[in-house]
Amino acid sequence: MKNLKLTYFDFPGGRGEPARLALFLGGIDFEDQRIPSDQWPALKTQMPFHALPVLEVDGKTISQCNTINRYVGRLTDLYPTDPWQAALCDEVMDAIEDIGQQIFSTLFMTDEDEKKRLREALENGPIPVYLNRLQAYLSEHGGEYFADNRLTVADLKVYIWIRHLRSGNLDYISPTLVEQCAPLLVKHFERVNSHARIIAYYQRP
Amino acid sequence: MKNLKLTYFDFPGGRGEPARLALFLGGIDFEDQRIPSDQWPALKTQMPFHALPVLEVDGKTISQCNTINRYVGRLTDLYPTDPWQAALCDEVMDAIEDIGQQIFSTLFMTDEDEKKRLREALENGPIPVYLNRLQAYLSEHGGEYFADNRLTVADLKVYIWIRHLRSGNLDYISPTLVEQCAPLLVKHFERVNSHARIIAYYQRP
Repeated sequence: MKNLKLTYFDFPGGRGEPARLALFLGGIDFEDQRIPSDQWPALKTQMPFHALPVLEVDGKTISQCNTINRYVGRLTDLYPTDPWQAALCDEVMDAIEDIGQQIFSTLFMTDEDEKKRLREALENGPIPVYLNRLQAYLSEHGGEYFADNRLTVADLKVYIWIRHLRSGNLDYISPTLVEQCAPLLVKHFERVNSHARIIAYYQRP
Repeated sequence: MKNLKLTYFDFPGGRGEPARLALFLGGIDFEDQRIPSDQWPALKTQMPFHALPVLEVDGKTISQCNTINRYVGRLTDLYPTDPWQAALCDEVMDAIEDIGQQIFSTLFMTDEDEKKRLREALENGPIPVYLNRLQAYLSEHGGEYFADNRLTVADLKVYIWIRHLRSGNLDYISPTLVEQCAPLLVKHFERVNSHARIIAYYQRP
């Protein structure tokens, strides 16, 4: 057994949550280090690219969320071994990172007018483009999961993103946008959300 | 043999060039479709996430440059099979995509003062952070290549980025920044650049 420590911020979402879920689903023990936001400024420059998540494996560190997702996906059999299915899984994760970065860049804006302008532009352009394409991929790849006809780390990545979009926590982006643009992604969200191990994860004390 | 078509813009760099190089190095025939910039607006909305490169494999399409790099890396034996070495390869490619996106966002800016301000901020912050870390990784991972002690798609991705940084084509970013911050990355650049198949690629008629 490898000694694993996953370091990320102290909230159940974002770039670190899919790897936490994958490790839990795979039944692999790991240290779940959660950084309070007031400790981040002192820690930031010690991180490889000044960002989280990072994963320590027997004392050696890797960073970059999708790199970590793929690595823990391999450990937990939540990443396809077939090269084409692996590519379908990768594409979805890379796409979510793309659009997620565009949304992330508006999170800490202090100019409210500019934030509104950028969020509305995302709602009227890129976000529907990504939702539509992901919905089409879901259908083309078998209808239930994004790759390999089973749950993979791609499904966990989509699940966390869709939950964020529907949360109502993004001002100027309608929480019903997913329902309007890509109802199959709501069904996919509910499919993952009702997975016994996902329910168990969020019911932990 | 699979039927491969790689579609990207008509220049020898950016997000599409590492996959072209990998396929050439691996001796795998592919259709190298190059889109003239005046044809891009009409084509853009037909692409999965309105971006290039895309790779067609026996008529099925994948997008996202690092997804494509990994897939062609598997076809050409330029991607590690060991999970940890694969993670080291992935991390470098994802990191370059991160910093590359930050530079890309300034490429088409029309406000010259704003472009200067952002480029100087990149030169004085994020770019050296990435260069220093990549140089450290190169040393830690064996000194010559970024993963698996041999040339992988990670090396091709770094090679194209370092060439861009040193090209003199980025106003307000010194073409000697790499030499100043991370001289081992210049040596790595020269190592890849003197690879017989890389020389052969750029000497094609």
